[in-house]
Amino acid sequence: MSIRLPLAARIVTVAVLPVLTACVKPPPGDRTDTLRAALRGGHARNVILFIGDGMGDSEITMARNYHVGAAGRLALDSLPLTGTVTTYAVTEDNPTRPDYVVDSAASATAWATGHKTSNRRLSTAPGSGAPLETILELAQKQGYATGNVTTAELTDATAAALGAHVNHRNCQGPTNMASCPHHAKAAGGPGSIAEQLVDHHIDVLLGGGRQRFDQVIDFGPYKGQTVIQSAVAQGYTVVTNRAELQTTRPGEKVLGLFAPAEMSPEWTGEPARAMPGSGPQRCVEHQRPESQPSLADMTRVALHLLDAVADEGLFLQVEGALIDKAAHLAYPCQQLGETVAFDAAVAVGLEYLANHPDTLVIVTADHGHSSQLVDPPTDTDHSPGVYSTLITREGAPMTISYATNVPGRPQEHTGIPVRIAAQGPQAGNVVGVIDQTDVFRIIAGALGIELPLPVEGQPSPSDL
Amino acid sequence: MSIRLPLAARIVTVAVLPVLTACVKPPPGDRTDTLRAALRGGHARNVILFIGDGMGDSEITMARNYHVGAAGRLALDSLPLTGTVTTYAVTEDNPTRPDYVVDSAASATAWATGHKTSNRRLSTAPGSGAPLETILELAQKQGYATGNVTTAELTDATAAALGAHVNHRNCQGPTNMASCPHHAKAAGGPGSIAEQLVDHHIDVLLGGGRQRFDQVIDFGPYKGQTVIQSAVAQGYTVVTNRAELQTTRPGEKVLGLFAPAEMSPEWTGEPARAMPGSGPQRCVEHQRPESQPSLADMTRVALHLLDAVADEGLFLQVEGALIDKAAHLAYPCQQLGETVAFDAAVAVGLEYLANHPDTLVIVTADHGHSSQLVDPPTDTDHSPGVYSTLITREGAPMTISYATNVPGRPQEHTGIPVRIAAQGPQAGNVVGVIDQTDVFRIIAGALGIELPLPVEGQPSPSDL
Repeated sequence: MSIRLPLAARIVTVAVLPVLTACVKPPPGDRTDTLRAALRGGHARNVILFIGDGMGDSEITMARNYHVGAAGRLALDSLPLTGTVTTYAVTEDNPTRPDYVVDSAASATAWATGHKTSNRRLSTAPGSGAPLETILELAQKQGYATGNVTTAELTDATAAALGAHVNHRNCQGPTNMASCPHHAKAAGGPGSIAEQLVDHHIDVLLGGGRQRFDQVIDFGPYKGQTVIQSAVAQGYTVVTNRAELQTTRPGEKVLGLFAPAEMSPEWTGEPARAMPGSGPQRCVEHQRPESQPSLADMTRVALHLLDAVADEGLFLQVEGALIDKAAHLAYPCQQLGETVAFDAAVAVGLEYLANHPDTLVIVTADHGHSSQLVDPPTDTDHSPGVYSTLITREGAPMTISYATNVPGRPQEHTGIPVRIAAQGPQAGNVVGVIDQTDVFRIIAGALGIELPLPVEGQPSPSDL
Repeated sequence: MSIRLPLAARIVTVAVLPVLTACVKPPPGDRTDTLRAALRGGHARNVILFIGDGMGDSEITMARNYHVGAAGRLALDSLPLTGTVTTYAVTEDNPTRPDYVVDSAASATAWATGHKTSNRRLSTAPGSGAPLETILELAQKQGYATGNVTTAELTDATAAALGAHVNHRNCQGPTNMASCPHHAKAAGGPGSIAEQLVDHHIDVLLGGGRQRFDQVIDFGPYKGQTVIQSAVAQGYTVVTNRAELQTTRPGEKVLGLFAPAEMSPEWTGEPARAMPGSGPQRCVEHQRPESQPSLADMTRVALHLLDAVADEGLFLQVEGALIDKAAHLAYPCQQLGETVAFDAAVAVGLEYLANHPDTLVIVTADHGHSSQLVDPPTDTDHSPGVYSTLITREGAPMTISYATNVPGRPQEHTGIPVRIAAQGPQAGNVVGVIDQTDVFRIIAGALGIELPLPVEGQPSPSDL
């Protein structure tokens, strides 16, 4: 066992930075009237859904502590109505049996379609593989402008679930169809996730994953063309960097592909390590290349583009995807940086709401993740996984442990519920303990979309 | 590495039990009007505060999954207004610097007094040790009947914070004063926690910890008597088992001490173990000896006793204490059993509310704990800590990992926020993101207790 200085001795050289407080706490006193005023019925013209991938309350809190202090408040903390969302999948062979730890694909299927499915499926039913209609598709049918934004590949689970129906999340491009051969266009299927997203004519698609759209289509009217070429043929303006994104104009359908795979992290730092851990460290901020827009940039442009063509209103999904990716790899600084960047995107959504009060903003996550905020380690008492001590902006040590898997193996999701917060028409429906499938119904209800009645003899989504 | 059967092969002999669903899900549709109806201003005549010790949302969810199924709902899930509570302590030498992982003593001080303090202190200020007035003391001054119920020792942190002011939570009985000699009665202090609780004349005190009250007082009018004898001299009826508890009558001040130390667990089972883990197992229920009342029993009697003498109203705190103790020791069945027993006590509180609508019921926790719901383990991918797979009532495997410390050492709290839920007058004040110190102000506001204005030059509780 190595000899280590006490933590206090190791951190003396770290400067204490001024505390940034994004929002001050509300004054004490009875807030009943304020809350009553926040409770609005009626319909929403616009819905903006923010999904922090892997952003459990533990992950939110680490970002809050680090960036604005334990008594500070993030933008996502300011939404007035709050609840808890249960997250679980079902098993493929028995859809009445839960699988208590959900992946992003089954999770996205739940909030996008109102149906539980098994892990790795995207908007298809467990067992049968029947396609499940998504909230984006329903909104589109009723004339809403639609958008889908992420920092991961656009073909990754969260964005994919809104506009693609496949048996396996791996089927991201025309040459990635090993897990779902019968979905290939040559087999008479709807094609890979990239093809389906483009063929859906979603008005705005922004994210990473250019490698999937550079693949060649093997069948049908666009045979021999790349997915990007098929997008251009179908009327899309394709942009690949921040400068090009800024030149897009309302009326254009935009496909933005800002990285070959997922986008670059906003912050970097040392990974968490096994005993004696890493740190104490401060994260290195502003690390995403200038050529890649931030999630807030993409959100702002998407709202600008959609707002101009939203005769009926708009539906926009914005995913902070790399929170999850960083947590899987036990990179605390990357995880915190993506959470802070996600929060900046939420702030853009709240600005839009301030100017368009008929907007429902919902902020939630798809599942919790591995990271835990633990006591400072000692030689005898410490995480058996990997851990790192960060010095927060308020000058205090914060130790983050990742211990859902053995050191060296990827960290895993957990079955904890996630927070949900909302503001705008029908935002009160998020209060209490709800399920992910309810998020679908809340959005549909707010947009005034009538849902098909359950088919007799089939379990309703809430039974699954 | 041992050779293990796949989990599926190991669980075939476990019978699938019928799913118990305590509460069905609300029907879909817009709940705005329902929520608006739940939002009541005005004052509460009664406040019942339920504290699940170490009951983070992860711990709640494991109990829900196990006992009523993932789609089921516990009684504590049914309260209509919900929020998130940040939990952190401050450091002893610098009360403006947070300590991100709170213990039950500093946590209880926060919700009991509205002030942050350092870990291990009870209702005393960091640094100075100045006593901090508690919500129970304030309520008592205004004529409210008061009660304090726990499954731990009555002198343990949560119950102690309401009626004792000491520098260290260890100072539980007259002969346990090593950590705070100047608080001893012989040193002119208020005495140990046990002495202070009795000397406060709290109307109903029910829990474990008889060993502390059997200790002999060393100074003052009761010198040479045990704390129990001093309680009798001050008008208490002392009971030590369930049968005696049932014979208590309104008008009596009751001190119930049902175990020498903490009370016995409701359920038992195998502890979590390092790779290859323990289980699959079902928990063994109904293990608390008949002589010891359940937390629901104690809650029912306390409300009966207090209600009869509550000319102004009542304040009752009910702690499910052994959730935390089981989590520290990585005993999943004990942890789940105590959570389910806590939920049964909440149901008693909600029954009282149904008959006394001028009651505010609040359910929250003091801090999150170590347990995480993780994917089923494999030889290569599994928790580096200790873990156990339980078969839930709906017949599905649920793997619980404890990995905040190395195997063999006690598991630790985490810095995650906790859920809060409320029903009754001013219950809306729990919605959003609040701090533990706000719980004090919410209760005081609901009871119409005027709080002293902050002293100039001293930081207000919400600044700390």
